[in-house]
Amino acid sequence: MPTSPRPYAGGLEGVVVGETRLSQVEGQAGRLTLAGFPVETLAPTVSFEAALFLLWHDRIPSDDELRILTTELAAARTLPQAVTDVLRAAAQIDAPPMHALRLGIAALSLRNPTPTDIVGAMATLVSAYVRLCAGHEPVAADAGDDHATAVLAMLTGERPTPAAVRALSTYLVTVCDHGMNASTFTARVVASTGSDLGAAVEAALGALQGPLHGGAPGPALEALMALRAQQDGSTLDARTRRWVTAEVEAGRRIMGFGHRVYRVRDPRADVLQRAAQRLLDDSEAGRALASDARCHERAVLETLRALKPDRPIATNVEFFTALLLHGLGLPTHLFTPVFAVGRVAGWTAHFAEQRANGRLIRPSVAYVGAQDRRLH
Amino acid sequence: MPTSPRPYAGGLEGVVVGETRLSQVEGQAGRLTLAGFPVETLAPTVSFEAALFLLWHDRIPSDDELRILTTELAAARTLPQAVTDVLRAAAQIDAPPMHALRLGIAALSLRNPTPTDIVGAMATLVSAYVRLCAGHEPVAADAGDDHATAVLAMLTGERPTPAAVRALSTYLVTVCDHGMNASTFTARVVASTGSDLGAAVEAALGALQGPLHGGAPGPALEALMALRAQQDGSTLDARTRRWVTAEVEAGRRIMGFGHRVYRVRDPRADVLQRAAQRLLDDSEAGRALASDARCHERAVLETLRALKPDRPIATNVEFFTALLLHGLGLPTHLFTPVFAVGRVAGWTAHFAEQRANGRLIRPSVAYVGAQDRRLH
Repeated sequence: MPTSPRPYAGGLEGVVVGETRLSQVEGQAGRLTLAGFPVETLAPTVSFEAALFLLWHDRIPSDDELRILTTELAAARTLPQAVTDVLRAAAQIDAPPMHALRLGIAALSLRNPTPTDIVGAMATLVSAYVRLCAGHEPVAADAGDDHATAVLAMLTGERPTPAAVRALSTYLVTVCDHGMNASTFTARVVASTGSDLGAAVEAALGALQGPLHGGAPGPALEALMALRAQQDGSTLDARTRRWVTAEVEAGRRIMGFGHRVYRVRDPRADVLQRAAQRLLDDSEAGRALASDARCHERAVLETLRALKPDRPIATNVEFFTALLLHGLGLPTHLFTPVFAVGRVAGWTAHFAEQRANGRLIRPSVAYVGAQDRRLH
Repeated sequence: MPTSPRPYAGGLEGVVVGETRLSQVEGQAGRLTLAGFPVETLAPTVSFEAALFLLWHDRIPSDDELRILTTELAAARTLPQAVTDVLRAAAQIDAPPMHALRLGIAALSLRNPTPTDIVGAMATLVSAYVRLCAGHEPVAADAGDDHATAVLAMLTGERPTPAAVRALSTYLVTVCDHGMNASTFTARVVASTGSDLGAAVEAALGALQGPLHGGAPGPALEALMALRAQQDGSTLDARTRRWVTAEVEAGRRIMGFGHRVYRVRDPRADVLQRAAQRLLDDSEAGRALASDARCHERAVLETLRALKPDRPIATNVEFFTALLLHGLGLPTHLFTPVFAVGRVAGWTAHFAEQRANGRLIRPSVAYVGAQDRRLH
């Protein structure tokens, strides 16, 4: 245990704040493993329920265990009436979805929710809120649905295609945990005080909604969509290159490219690229978008590398997340709430891990203010 | 900026996570300064509004500035109807006050609250919720009241005595900020993502409600009250000494004594001891309690020092907080919510300071889980 203050570490970058068995992020190697499984083998293969079980119990569930958790999670997707009521009030003033999610979890917290209740509710909160804001009543999924199917059914009110279910399932598992990101760290600090799971998840949602959190897939897609829509006679490739050059000259970041942790390609980007490709291949419009996305990505990367030859740059997870979620018919303002539907798996697992550790997280701070002031 | 991982720091103790001009906690010296003013000169002297202004603007307000803030804070104590409605729903199921506070702040957050709105609302949320749980309607304070007067008026529905106002004012200023405690750190992590103030304060409330946070004045008082009530023919001094010995032998902590940071007497304890003494001197029952508290404190300290001669031990802020808040007629389950009424001043100031810094707080974690697992 260190006893003398360490030097100021802005952002705690590189400061190891604890131990976890949940996920390993190896930024230099471009590797992400979830409880020992490479994300690229796990995410396209297992259901969200299996990944949740893995994070909670550190092993892949048996068929029986998976069936039980699937049933319990389905039951947990039914919200208490009082929780739906607060969502309704939020929808009346058209509050941002992340604010409504926090309010919904706060309302659920009054009722001593289990981890399963919280994970199940997150999906229903997002779906119900979207429908309420659009003037529709929430719809329930079938009790036999797995989580990915249920999320899509509750969002749209229709049975989803197998391709859509597979794409969302891959997405939810891909994002279910990712080391000590800011929202997960927030959940662990709250957990470290001995507080309850609802408080920790609510706090994590508050951190996740911040634009610097790193989950910003909306802008990555919006740039591509805007460039596609420009009909000035030039090719998408040429338009993209001109736009990147202008943005970099103006000192702005190109959203969807680069990551604070990964110095090579983000492994989640590969998984989601394949999943998005597969989903988009299902339709004519999807194939056209996928083709344009490849063209855009190539033009951005080549332009950035020419402008900044010393900086490693790669397409990040946000770019393919945006393609995938757009392919599922989701508007950009739902990207972060749907991210929470997956990441809540990690938050609940980190909560349990932190509570088992038992130590309060209470750092120090350097005082740089006034000294020896007197009132008179 | 450190680039290689540092060794595991459980609880981040001694790790300096940032800079602040808000408060300086010197544990070895037993000193706490708020924006350069020693807590013992500030807390008994200035109003909560003046301390809030000091934290926000780094100087004591002029008379005009103080009048304006007092008026704005009074206006902010009027809750939107929708916020009162969610409190009412929480009261119907008798939810814990800290849960109701989080829900109330989440509901207020939908409406883009200013820092003044949040600080004002915290007082009304606590007061209104207490009254709703008791089957009474919330009552408003006078628009001309300062915050300490208003809190007591809203809680009791009656005009408070000058002694009570002075005691609560001293308490609120004493606890308005205290370095990088867990709830403040939570608020800063949320702020560092670029999230909004409501989310940060909601998260901080979640951390504050945890029993390890350090704000546990309830149990400190309950032990004294239980020992006072025992009528077995022995003196309070003898009963206390027997009880401390039995607790220590059972491996339990004596609440109200000792602190993670302060190795000598907590300076807030002195301030609150004097404030509690002054308040209790106002009545016969108060004087009897104060006398018993002094006897109890002496017996606990002497017994602990005899049992653990190597460990520095002192009466902490919780013990005198409990005496003071009990003297104000507050039940123990309101101690933490009323603490939040004061500490929200620090949370809002730390939020602004962190946002000005601009750097995402995103630490690392050591992976200790399974390696190289395969699905089949």
